[in-house]
Amino acid sequence: MAHPLASEPHRTAVAPGGVFDWLDEAALLRADAGLTRTLRSREAEDPVLDLAGNDYLGLTRHPVVTRAAADAALRWGGGSTGSRLVTGTTALHTELEEELAEFCGAEAALVFSSGYTANLAALTALTDPDTLIVSDAYNHASLIDGCRLARADVHRSPHSDPEAVREILGGRTQRRALVVSDSVFSVDGDAAPLAALSDAARAHGAALLVDDAHGLGVLGPGGTGALAAAGLAGQPDTVATVTLSKSLGSQGGAVLGPRRVIRHLTETARTFIFDTGLAPAAAGAALAALRLLRAEPHRADRAREVARSLAARLTAAGLQACEPDAAVVSVRAPGPEAAVAWAADCRRAGLAVGCFRPPSVPDGVSRLRLTARGDLTDDQITDAVRIIAELAPAGARSR
Amino acid sequence: MAHPLASEPHRTAVAPGGVFDWLDEAALLRADAGLTRTLRSREAEDPVLDLAGNDYLGLTRHPVVTRAAADAALRWGGGSTGSRLVTGTTALHTELEEELAEFCGAEAALVFSSGYTANLAALTALTDPDTLIVSDAYNHASLIDGCRLARADVHRSPHSDPEAVREILGGRTQRRALVVSDSVFSVDGDAAPLAALSDAARAHGAALLVDDAHGLGVLGPGGTGALAAAGLAGQPDTVATVTLSKSLGSQGGAVLGPRRVIRHLTETARTFIFDTGLAPAAAGAALAALRLLRAEPHRADRAREVARSLAARLTAAGLQACEPDAAVVSVRAPGPEAAVAWAADCRRAGLAVGCFRPPSVPDGVSRLRLTARGDLTDDQITDAVRIIAELAPAGARSR
Ligand SMILES: Cc1ncc(COP(=O)(O)O)c(C=O)c1O
Ligand SMILES: Cc1ncc(COP(=O)(O)O)c(C=O)c1O
Repeated sequence: MAHPLASEPHRTAVAPGGVFDWLDEAALLRADAGLTRTLRSREAEDPVLDLAGNDYLGLTRHPVVTRAAADAALRWGGGSTGSRLVTGTTALHTELEEELAEFCGAEAALVFSSGYTANLAALTALTDPDTLIVSDAYNHASLIDGCRLARADVHRSPHSDPEAVREILGGRTQRRALVVSDSVFSVDGDAAPLAALSDAARAHGAALLVDDAHGLGVLGPGGTGALAAAGLAGQPDTVATVTLSKSLGSQGGAVLGPRRVIRHLTETARTFIFDTGLAPAAAGAALAALRLLRAEPHRADRAREVARSLAARLTAAGLQACEPDAAVVSVRAPGPEAAVAWAADCRRAGLAVGCFRPPSVPDGVSRLRLTARGDLTDDQITDAVRIIAELAPAGARSR
Repeated sequence: MAHPLASEPHRTAVAPGGVFDWLDEAALLRADAGLTRTLRSREAEDPVLDLAGNDYLGLTRHPVVTRAAADAALRWGGGSTGSRLVTGTTALHTELEEELAEFCGAEAALVFSSGYTANLAALTALTDPDTLIVSDAYNHASLIDGCRLARADVHRSPHSDPEAVREILGGRTQRRALVVSDSVFSVDGDAAPLAALSDAARAHGAALLVDDAHGLGVLGPGGTGALAAAGLAGQPDTVATVTLSKSLGSQGGAVLGPRRVIRHLTETARTFIFDTGLAPAAAGAALAALRLLRAEPHRADRAREVARSLAARLTAAGLQACEPDAAVVSVRAPGPEAAVAWAADCRRAGLAVGCFRPPSVPDGVSRLRLTARGDLTDDQITDAVRIIAELAPAGARSR
């Protein structure tokens, strides 16, 4: 007689939920390694001083910005209703694209629902199977994912090393090449040698793609970005991506570059074509923030000044703060557990700071990460330095 | 004597901008194939009747939804200021996640900045190199990109064919498997055989991932989605992704599923960890729309009713409309140029309809795509049918 299960030869013995048992095992491994991450929900009236977010100019809650977001939602609706090529382009999106391009000195711009999808679009649409991508070892996750999605060959280059880029390009066999780098690296806040990267790319007929997420609003005259700071704005072989979610206090991203690049992305980039357009409120907020920055260009200078002041005072307190190139100040911790405890102690003292540790740090060094918000007062800077220095763990001071 | 260029052996002779000449060639090829796409910017007071967007319940401009978006921006700011694990989780995000999970009958939910990045997260975080992904041939671009980003083996299965899925799973050598399908396919509006897919997956110890972008708010009791409609809500081996940008009138996406799945995504999914949290206005709009739908569940029935009515009346007018499974009605056109001209004629007559043609249609058939918005009046439906039928090209009527 047949076995009772013989009629269902493929049915597994485990309960259906067993297919996800491995996720619990992975969670245990993370817990053992001290790498558990949990969401912390904040309240609108959170009294904590925030040096952990990326609100470089403090514009996220500026009344002009929030009012513009609100007005855009009331006027245009809660969403854009469709993909940009169907119904998702409002006059607001077009205005934002024009003003963003003009501000950064680019021929044209294209707005995306996030900086992440903007990077995926640029990397996939501007490369083909006969392209070599040379990507900095410390590039942001969205650039790395873009490299993976692209059908090109990818070569990781040593961090901020234009000579190495030259060498890699010199040995290429592919028809095209694209050099890709963050402008300001998000963990340590160091700036990429963009002018030298551009020279290296040009010497070998390669294009240059710069992710200016942490440069827009901070670097360049009046915050016009890292390309402007390097004299590369408007160059015909150079493309920038930016995010609207940091200095511009909103959400979304954009690609900026020659008109032919923007047209190509509009017509072929999958994360543009198959994604709903940015919500009107986010477009409205970013546009208002951009106009504020144009009217008050000192905001960018102030963010850099706060960064230098924070770094100098932390160094004076004996801590190992990096010389900041933009508005990110990174402070070395003696190890991952010490970094987590240090950040938690700061939070209890009323100061939110970022905490980076492996595997999110490319060099294995754990650190606190401070955002030098341009709207901080001198008193707030003094408080922040005091709290961080007082709570520093053993081993955090320079030898 | 050395050649004047000898000191710069690698410098190419072309001008720097030459690196992008190939984009113009690609544009010419698209133009020759009649595949040029251009952005059309719309005004807030656009008088056109919109059956082209994905605003299935007509909630995008509902005063309660736009007011909630505005209030959220005023209260919380233009953006969320950081990634969800750092500063980007507000109490509003948590509320939305809880209510969305409860509404759909899932244990937990995680909100993303788009449906696109939610799909990328689910596919990359729930698979590993020892996983077989079985992906429907007509799946959405974001699922396809997710498959490409994942480090798993990918097998494309014939469209809506659970028997084929069974066979592919039966021959697998990988330790794990994930079956992936849209719930409602965006081009033709046909529903996937979810119950049969779930049976096939279970028979082989595979998990099931369903993209319910076009099902949420339309299918299931009160619009609770395609999983609820198929009796699969809350199943321990089943995960759904949704978008907040269609029925919920906003922007963003979410993954819904067992708590362990959501925890795993929170801690490991790159498009979650390295992306700025959804803007408060978008979270607020989606939450308000969700509450409206809970209070008025007939909205979902009405969308399906409008779809059936549109399809029946277009068929009665001699056109080739698909029997709609949800709120998408697709009407065959005799060819790509005829489809484009038909849609353009409709727009001139005051009606916006979607137009799909190769390469955006998986089966090569060009068609008009109509969104059966639940807020359409009978007069509007009559007008729409009249315009579409009057302007139908030769060859659009059934034989
Ligand atoms: C360097 C860099 N690029 C891109 C992004 C992605 O931008 P968004 O968060 O707007 O998607 C970020 C941060 O989130 C970033 O730090
Ligand atoms: C089936 C499907 N999945 C995912 C998405 C992506 O969602 P979003 O536009 O919110 O990013 C869309 C549409 O845009 C879709 O149609």
